[in-house]
Amino acid sequence: MTEADIKPARRSIGATRNPASQEAILVAAEAVLVENGLSGFSIEAVARRARAGKPTIYRWWPSQAALLLDVYHNQKRINFIFPDTGNVHDDLRAYLHGLLQTWREGASGEVFRCVVAKAQEEPAALTALSAYMAGRRQQSGKIVERAQARGEVRPEVKPELVTEILASFAWGRLLTERLNVSEEEVDAVVDAVLGGILAKPAT
Amino acid sequence: MTEADIKPARRSIGATRNPASQEAILVAAEAVLVENGLSGFSIEAVARRARAGKPTIYRWWPSQAALLLDVYHNQKRINFIFPDTGNVHDDLRAYLHGLLQTWREGASGEVFRCVVAKAQEEPAALTALSAYMAGRRQQSGKIVERAQARGEVRPEVKPELVTEILASFAWGRLLTERLNVSEEEVDAVVDAVLGGILAKPAT
Repeated sequence: MTEADIKPARRSIGATRNPASQEAILVAAEAVLVENGLSGFSIEAVARRARAGKPTIYRWWPSQAALLLDVYHNQKRINFIFPDTGNVHDDLRAYLHGLLQTWREGASGEVFRCVVAKAQEEPAALTALSAYMAGRRQQSGKIVERAQARGEVRPEVKPELVTEILASFAWGRLLTERLNVSEEEVDAVVDAVLGGILAKPAT
Repeated sequence: MTEADIKPARRSIGATRNPASQEAILVAAEAVLVENGLSGFSIEAVARRARAGKPTIYRWWPSQAALLLDVYHNQKRINFIFPDTGNVHDDLRAYLHGLLQTWREGASGEVFRCVVAKAQEEPAALTALSAYMAGRRQQSGKIVERAQARGEVRPEVKPELVTEILASFAWGRLLTERLNVSEEEVDAVVDAVLGGILAKPAT
């Protein structure tokens, strides 16, 4: 007797998202991804595991990437840090450190690298990822905007470009499985962006 | 009458790489990738197009990723710039600009993003990409090493980390199809890493 024989099948409840079913699908999608990897991830496998209909899933999530991005958001472990300590060094350090740590722990790094991989194959996945990243840049750019308001950062600096540099560094580490960045390395990256690498002229 | 009816089949020449066949396979692999995208890329399609045997291809390239990386190397358009102008600003600017430009032109950006995507699915692809990147970091790090020898850059700065920051920025743009980076943006990124973003204290 299999699990499928015992549990009643979940029924589609139409176009309105039902929180319980939605959660079940997200949990199932995470489990399928972790167990099978991206090459074994499919809406069919998620539907089977969640005991939901494929049309239900497609009605709620237009693409695999949209579903994966929601899995990524849904993880309780995700705790993106957009801190506001009143000091740009501490804020940027916490931002980069938090990103790397989040991806190191649990499945969130695994999920996100799959979204990035999918985006290279499917236009719908790229669209979903791009919209997500635009929102993230706006959110993280506020760290630098506040520092500019305090007079810590030069006014001509583009806020979103600064946090994009840090986030891209984290992407590179995630996508080459080099997430074990030491505290010293995080400091070195943040210090480079904050203070530059040029030798100071002798005074 | 198809093309296949006219051309004589290419014969396997054993374990030694034959330059002509190798080139034909690389050209075929690029064409298959450009025409079909990553989801339609397969060793079988490459073999058919190159009129080579699948075992021949597998003997020369242990994985799809290894083949794709060789396609990437093979492109005549690739002209990575590891310049030595005697000035770290110009060198880093040319490095980042060259990377973005190379990926914008021809198929090389398309090939490289496919390698990155494959690396998220297949351990062999990640191994091939990692080895490639380690070599690239060593090569590009020399820009900063020379600047340190000239006294331009502080001695405690890790050379490979600096060019990794720039290359990761380019990766982020490639993987989200935002390669149209303006000259001003290239300057802004290089200036941030060189001189920092902090406001200079009033003198």
